[in-house]
Amino acid sequence: MNTDMLEKQLIAWRRDLHQYPETGFLEMRTASKVAAILDKLGFTLQLGKEVMSAQDCMGKPDKNETKNHLEWAIHNGANKDYVSYFSEGYTGIVATMDLKIPGPTIAYRFDMDALDINESDATEHFPVREGFRSILPYKMHACGHDTHTAIGLGLATFIVENKEQLCGKIKLIFQPAEEGTRGAKSMVKAGVVKDVDYFIASHIGTGVPHNHFVAANNGFLATSKLDITFSGRASHAGAKPEEGKNALLAAASAALNIFAIARHSKGSSRVNVGELHAGSGRNIIASEAKLKVETRGETSAINQFVREQVESIVAGAAKMYQISYKMEVVGEGLSCHCSKELAHILQQCAKEHPDIVSSILESNDSAGSEDATYFMKEVQEHGGFATYCIFGTDLAAGHHNEKFDVNEETLLPAVEILYQSAVQLSNTSQQ
Amino acid sequence: MNTDMLEKQLIAWRRDLHQYPETGFLEMRTASKVAAILDKLGFTLQLGKEVMSAQDCMGKPDKNETKNHLEWAIHNGANKDYVSYFSEGYTGIVATMDLKIPGPTIAYRFDMDALDINESDATEHFPVREGFRSILPYKMHACGHDTHTAIGLGLATFIVENKEQLCGKIKLIFQPAEEGTRGAKSMVKAGVVKDVDYFIASHIGTGVPHNHFVAANNGFLATSKLDITFSGRASHAGAKPEEGKNALLAAASAALNIFAIARHSKGSSRVNVGELHAGSGRNIIASEAKLKVETRGETSAINQFVREQVESIVAGAAKMYQISYKMEVVGEGLSCHCSKELAHILQQCAKEHPDIVSSILESNDSAGSEDATYFMKEVQEHGGFATYCIFGTDLAAGHHNEKFDVNEETLLPAVEILYQSAVQLSNTSQQ
Amino acid sequence: MNTDMLEKQLIAWRRDLHQYPETGFLEMRTASKVAAILDKLGFTLQLGKEVMSAQDCMGKPDKNETKNHLEWAIHNGANKDYVSYFSEGYTGIVATMDLKIPGPTIAYRFDMDALDINESDATEHFPVREGFRSILPYKMHACGHDTHTAIGLGLATFIVENKEQLCGKIKLIFQPAEEGTRGAKSMVKAGVVKDVDYFIASHIGTGVPHNHFVAANNGFLATSKLDITFSGRASHAGAKPEEGKNALLAAASAALNIFAIARHSKGSSRVNVGELHAGSGRNIIASEAKLKVETRGETSAINQFVREQVESIVAGAAKMYQISYKMEVVGEGLSCHCSKELAHILQQCAKEHPDIVSSILESNDSAGSEDATYFMKEVQEHGGFATYCIFGTDLAAGHHNEKFDVNEETLLPAVEILYQSAVQLSNTSQQ
Amino acid sequence: MNTDMLEKQLIAWRRDLHQYPETGFLEMRTASKVAAILDKLGFTLQLGKEVMSAQDCMGKPDKNETKNHLEWAIHNGANKDYVSYFSEGYTGIVATMDLKIPGPTIAYRFDMDALDINESDATEHFPVREGFRSILPYKMHACGHDTHTAIGLGLATFIVENKEQLCGKIKLIFQPAEEGTRGAKSMVKAGVVKDVDYFIASHIGTGVPHNHFVAANNGFLATSKLDITFSGRASHAGAKPEEGKNALLAAASAALNIFAIARHSKGSSRVNVGELHAGSGRNIIASEAKLKVETRGETSAINQFVREQVESIVAGAAKMYQISYKMEVVGEGLSCHCSKELAHILQQCAKEHPDIVSSILESNDSAGSEDATYFMKEVQEHGGFATYCIFGTDLAAGHHNEKFDVNEETLLPAVEILYQSAVQLSNTSQQ
Repeated sequence: MNTDMLEKQLIAWRRDLHQYPETGFLEMRTASKVAAILDKLGFTLQLGKEVMSAQDCMGKPDKNETKNHLEWAIHNGANKDYVSYFSEGYTGIVATMDLKIPGPTIAYRFDMDALDINESDATEHFPVREGFRSILPYKMHACGHDTHTAIGLGLATFIVENKEQLCGKIKLIFQPAEEGTRGAKSMVKAGVVKDVDYFIASHIGTGVPHNHFVAANNGFLATSKLDITFSGRASHAGAKPEEGKNALLAAASAALNIFAIARHSKGSSRVNVGELHAGSGRNIIASEAKLKVETRGETSAINQFVREQVESIVAGAAKMYQISYKMEVVGEGLSCHCSKELAHILQQCAKEHPDIVSSILESNDSAGSEDATYFMKEVQEHGGFATYCIFGTDLAAGHHNEKFDVNEETLLPAVEILYQSAVQLSNTSQQ
Repeated sequence: MNTDMLEKQLIAWRRDLHQYPETGFLEMRTASKVAAILDKLGFTLQLGKEVMSAQDCMGKPDKNETKNHLEWAIHNGANKDYVSYFSEGYTGIVATMDLKIPGPTIAYRFDMDALDINESDATEHFPVREGFRSILPYKMHACGHDTHTAIGLGLATFIVENKEQLCGKIKLIFQPAEEGTRGAKSMVKAGVVKDVDYFIASHIGTGVPHNHFVAANNGFLATSKLDITFSGRASHAGAKPEEGKNALLAAASAALNIFAIARHSKGSSRVNVGELHAGSGRNIIASEAKLKVETRGETSAINQFVREQVESIVAGAAKMYQISYKMEVVGEGLSCHCSKELAHILQQCAKEHPDIVSSILESNDSAGSEDATYFMKEVQEHGGFATYCIFGTDLAAGHHNEKFDVNEETLLPAVEILYQSAVQLSNTSQQ
Repeated sequence: MNTDMLEKQLIAWRRDLHQYPETGFLEMRTASKVAAILDKLGFTLQLGKEVMSAQDCMGKPDKNETKNHLEWAIHNGANKDYVSYFSEGYTGIVATMDLKIPGPTIAYRFDMDALDINESDATEHFPVREGFRSILPYKMHACGHDTHTAIGLGLATFIVENKEQLCGKIKLIFQPAEEGTRGAKSMVKAGVVKDVDYFIASHIGTGVPHNHFVAANNGFLATSKLDITFSGRASHAGAKPEEGKNALLAAASAALNIFAIARHSKGSSRVNVGELHAGSGRNIIASEAKLKVETRGETSAINQFVREQVESIVAGAAKMYQISYKMEVVGEGLSCHCSKELAHILQQCAKEHPDIVSSILESNDSAGSEDATYFMKEVQEHGGFATYCIFGTDLAAGHHNEKFDVNEETLLPAVEILYQSAVQLSNTSQQ
Repeated sequence: MNTDMLEKQLIAWRRDLHQYPETGFLEMRTASKVAAILDKLGFTLQLGKEVMSAQDCMGKPDKNETKNHLEWAIHNGANKDYVSYFSEGYTGIVATMDLKIPGPTIAYRFDMDALDINESDATEHFPVREGFRSILPYKMHACGHDTHTAIGLGLATFIVENKEQLCGKIKLIFQPAEEGTRGAKSMVKAGVVKDVDYFIASHIGTGVPHNHFVAANNGFLATSKLDITFSGRASHAGAKPEEGKNALLAAASAALNIFAIARHSKGSSRVNVGELHAGSGRNIIASEAKLKVETRGETSAINQFVREQVESIVAGAAKMYQISYKMEVVGEGLSCHCSKELAHILQQCAKEHPDIVSSILESNDSAGSEDATYFMKEVQEHGGFATYCIFGTDLAAGHHNEKFDVNEETLLPAVEILYQSAVQLSNTSQQ
């Protein structure tokens, strides 16, 4: 496939995925198509529960929602040979190419999930104009993971067609549920990067201009996403106020005190109670309350500090009102420490690409949170190298905006740079 | 109509209403049928806005809901000649019988609305067994207003058939939206009891045993139902926490402080924040929060004290977070002071009824709140007399319970006692 | 001693005590003088720890304060033969007169302690005019316990001089530390009313007019006085905010939630955090916080409900901030249920007194709290009778006011009525 | 004076000041002695209100405390010729030496105040061993301002003895009340640095090792110190709870919400309620509450953001409880931006000093707050240059610790480096 053809294919893949967005742990249509393509290209596949630890999936939808989505996927173009591997919502894929020449194991991570956002129907919105707007209300690829998946498939194609420059093993990791930082940990716990020497994650956009490249993005904050439920006892507020165990008061008290968690002298932190829903009627002492909480820290230790305070506060608020509580971790990301050695190689690969006008080594701008950090930490802990790089692009609107869109010309260079990194790493290691 | 026939008719009316429950300001099918019957009986009718002050309706559903319900009513048996009078949700009726003999004006109040409760489908539940369970999910006559409306129609029938014992004028008031204490004030403000000398409201059940009667129930607490909305400014909790104006924190702070309102030395009070809903996403500073609040007081002054504290607290919480707020009164009831003179007459009428085994003058047991108190206060302020009486019955389960049901044998005696009170008041006044 | 002489003596005693006020568990001068007089009159005395359970003294001053006060007492007229019995602050006295004729055991309770109030120095204030104003700043008999003690001594005198009308045993109980409801429980636990058939406590004033009498005051609220301390960890608020364990935040949170404790449907309740002191410097995370809390209930059960909520809230607030807490009960009173049989006798005695213009059986007006209720409950539980009566008087200003004063003409009739009750009870029992 | 003699003199001055510590706006003995020495050296003096704007003094003690301290100062060695200039607590001094050769105006700032700390009496504590421990309980030079004042006097001596190397004008500023960042603003507002081209403030210690030097310390946080008072209405908590206006609840609510102020994305911030004192009795609704609050920000804008939130919260809490409040700024410091050009010169001077082993240009380590920043901002705003440098020393214990002490060998080199900076700045400007 020449590069023109590949570029058209990349765009076709991306638009198809964009039109059929699937949120975390429901990427059944997406994964089934990805698996079919990779299989055909000759990769060895590991699918679903084989590459995901069930108990480490965070914030996974319940059985009912999963089952309903499976039906939707089947009716909307999922590949019938593969969809059954993902039917329970374990939608991860690891595709391995063993080059049969001794060499390093190099892994690339691509995330596949969409967001609960209603895509704009404005006529100036590119996906509307080109006819690939999301077919679903309140589901949208508004962060670019559709392009990530397409880039992953493009890289797979490139690798297969240019094997002669490579050695060792190449692992392509297609991860579910990056949004909410929910999916990576389960793949790490399933051992998918245990044997990896070099790990490269990447993202499109994030404010970096088109044809600019950042080889190491260290700005991610460690984060925890916590769902908290207080369960008390209802009672008629007029007739028997003393018989109630007030979950609304526990939740309000917890919320106030959570925001009051101390700042940390070692670096920046964040905490937010983004949602609080309590009670079922004006004249009833509220018996249930739910909070959605998020903590962040410049380092994993700072995030851990904040999270521990949340736990104490929640336990204390429950004790105050003699009620019970449940605190569920529905997402978690670590702080990010890219390996400079690996980043240097990436920076060089990008510099040499004819389209790239700027390739910088490192950026520490805050860029939210990422659970690719789980893979990175695991690889680095056993002596490997890891980095997180950014392919700049033109953004029609910011990430997570209903008018988010990218410049599709970013796709091919991204594939080429990633491929070049594999070549360089093969060479480096052979010396 | 003999009493056997009337009893059957009462039960038929009651079961029809029970099967088609309509909540406050949506009693279109109900009111249209009531109006048709009263018209046929020869009463002079005043309908809808004629007997309701639009600006004094509290907690009225919005136009859309009202319009949708109109369609439902038309498709579910509303009387086509009358339903248009109630199409905007002003569903009150005043039916007057002028007896053309000088005498007092005597008014009886009946409430017509149902509750947002899902009726039990248990086979032992009487309406299930007899086939008149609510046809609608989450709508149910679980407080007995279906029986009140039937009793009102029965009283109308009795009056027409036994005019010779009466003088003056009889006014039958069919009130919407008693639940949430929302509808009476608008009828009072429209002037429907300005000319009333005697006013009698009544309720079935409330814990009083079958064939027992209470002539004056003074136990109602004054109450206010308040809907509070805080509007702040959203912001990304990780990227720009300082740009948010946090409505969730304002609401949590308000809730805590509302519960902390001081007790009152002059009598009992209540306050409840029954619901709190804030925020739209875990990682967003919440820009909106809603609270459902209820205050009560043994006297109207005590309730007013509590309500004023709520207002200060809400205004202060908004100021704390530099946000705006709206506080809407969606219901209000006064405390109750029955006229002993009138209660004595009622007590006597009940005593003389062959089925009644106990008729007491007064009870002060707390019995929630009631907006018939608005009519009572108005009548008493211009020199009239008012009381609130209870017809005891067997309850299958408490009021507002999904298995609530009454003993239908209570209906006929209720009609007869109310009719007797009209006779006695006619005689009393003639002396 | 004739009644004129006795009246002069009563006034002399009262003024002496008024001038030398001693607060709870420090009534050393007072008790030593009382003991000396009672001894001389021929009563059998039990003193100090003999009649007080050390572990049941609530809110007792520390050793240092006690020791310092002892010195003061010795230098200010304490009786040297007796003061040593009270040197550790166990200042209770039980004086028994065995009449050697079979009959009931009748007990009278008198409280002796003063308040931390600065007595007015206005020239129109009677004690100023007559030269018996408190010699101590911020110490004052502003509740009339000086008169109670004088009445007790008067009753002792009367009894000794008129033994022939009496039988059984008379017990005069002089109680320390009624203010703050701290002292009675320790005397009950020491068993001083185990053998008592009739128990009579009394109070002067409380809003009842001069020469009026109330035989049974049931209006006391049960109460608990709680001292709460949170102990956290200090830290520099700028340099190491994360190392602090914030006792100020725990205390603020506890205070807010304590005020938010639910009202009780069975009767009135109260809760107050009257004082909160936290922190030792602006730039230090506060490591210590203290709260003074008071709960009340129309019944002991209601007070217990409120107190239990306080305990939960305090424990929860400590847990929230990972700190420790201490909650000390420094006072407690029960609700009051006077025995009607006994009250009838008292009412009759008062009715027959020539000065008394009104003697009523019972009043339920709220009148704060009293720990005489401990004696009452104990006596009633073993089958005896108890009441709490009020001798009306003219008040110059309300109780606990710096200008509080009584009409001294109330003293003699009080003694006479109490003596008459002993006569009646002797007679009653002999029948 | 040779350097040996000067060193002895420096130590003698320092120990005298250490033994007689005076806190902010009470440095009367200190200032009177400083003024006498400077006068004798030939400096032109401006004293007291001449160099301090009364209305810009923050957190100044009241008249009574000031008057009492004056007496103490007079009895403890204040210079009688000068003390009267400082008798109202305006204790600032500006000493100017006009060299009569055209050149720049160079200012040096020295702070003179002590802390409310009880100095250790441990035998190993150097001031104890050498007999110059503070003569006052709870007053101590625990931050080294005694050495700053001595260095200032040493610099004055050096300048006078070595005028020939200098030109322009030298201004020595002796500032009161640096602790709590209270005094500098008033001197700035009085115009004392309006004509200054170069401004140099300095501090001893702060963790920098002995014989190390930092030419520019930018780590100061902007800060505001706020005293907040809520005034409500007292009421008996049992008898009339509804009549109280609860200042304790307002304060608790304010405290909680103040801690919950949002973090700022532009840099670090701090907020602390270090003290909360509310209420005067257990059974009284608290009518008054006081909070001591401190805000900080990496920039003045961030501090301003936090302070504005505090103001809103306090106003809102008062509104909640229908009470009034007062918020007084009792201290304020800005963020620090040293002029690199000037710092370079200082760094060079230190490098060339034979004792100095390390001289670095800049440090951004957080070092609390400083109100020298007011002088710096003023000088920089009119085009001048300013820096804040650190003379490292051995610390026996951290600043503000009861065992704080320095290595007195640091004094002479500090004087010499500062003098050299004056020489360099004279030369620089002449070129």
